[in-house]
Amino acid sequence: MALNLQYEAIGKGFVQQYYALFDDPTQRPNLANMYNIESSFMTFEGVQLQGSVKIMEKLTSLSFQKINRIITAVDSQPMFDGGVLINVLGRLQTDEDMPHAYIQTFVLKPIEGSFFVQHDIFRLVLHDTI
Amino acid sequence: MALNLQYEAIGKGFVQQYYALFDDPTQRPNLANMYNIESSFMTFEGVQLQGSVKIMEKLTSLSFQKINRIITAVDSQPMFDGGVLINVLGRLQTDEDMPHAYIQTFVLKPIEGSFFVQHDIFRLVLHDTI
Repeated sequence: MALNLQYEAIGKGFVQQYYALFDDPTQRPNLANMYNIESSFMTFEGVQLQGSVKIMEKLTSLSFQKINRIITAVDSQPMFDGGVLINVLGRLQTDEDMPHAYIQTFVLKPIEGSFFVQHDIFRLVLHDTI
Repeated sequence: MALNLQYEAIGKGFVQQYYALFDDPTQRPNLANMYNIESSFMTFEGVQLQGSVKIMEKLTSLSFQKINRIITAVDSQPMFDGGVLINVLGRLQTDEDMPHAYIQTFVLKPIEGSFFVQHDIFRLVLHDTI
């Protein structure tokens, strides 16, 4: 499959759509539609999860009610299977906690004119030492 | 092609090998062997580069002499073409500058019993506002 030259627009559009659902607790369960039941991988703060059921168990277990999110950079690249690699750098503040920088990487896999999230890696930018 | 179940060891081994070359100015030109002449993509602080020649022009143009690097986390996932997705969170200090957090994402593509870097995204963790 050829490279999808719309990768920039796809990356930015996906990030906007994904976080609109994520950041609204009533909408968050709808993220299930973005993952595949078997072939989606997520690594959330080092914890490895496979498949939309386990991923959604994790995402809907997060207990904060309110998220302030600022996207600093979205870097996208076209992949040779028609997919898109997306790297997000941002900051988020949950409830009244301190704001934290975070990174999230997505690999979108093309399927029937759309995409699903095949790979998802999330990390807060925290370091063990100063 | 099947998932490569050695993805954790491959990710950690690659990161060690890549930065051993990167962090030594006399060795850095040897990184050329890790990229493909045409089908490697790099996004360096938002600048998009394709192919090992352009990528190496960028990497060998970096003017610092000394790098202190601390790896905080390496998250790897197996990919369905036998490749490995690797996310690195770390901190680096070049010459006498302030240390900065950074993120780097690699997609390793399998080729003849080894891998090359098909995708590479590098970002310092800097935000426009506090």
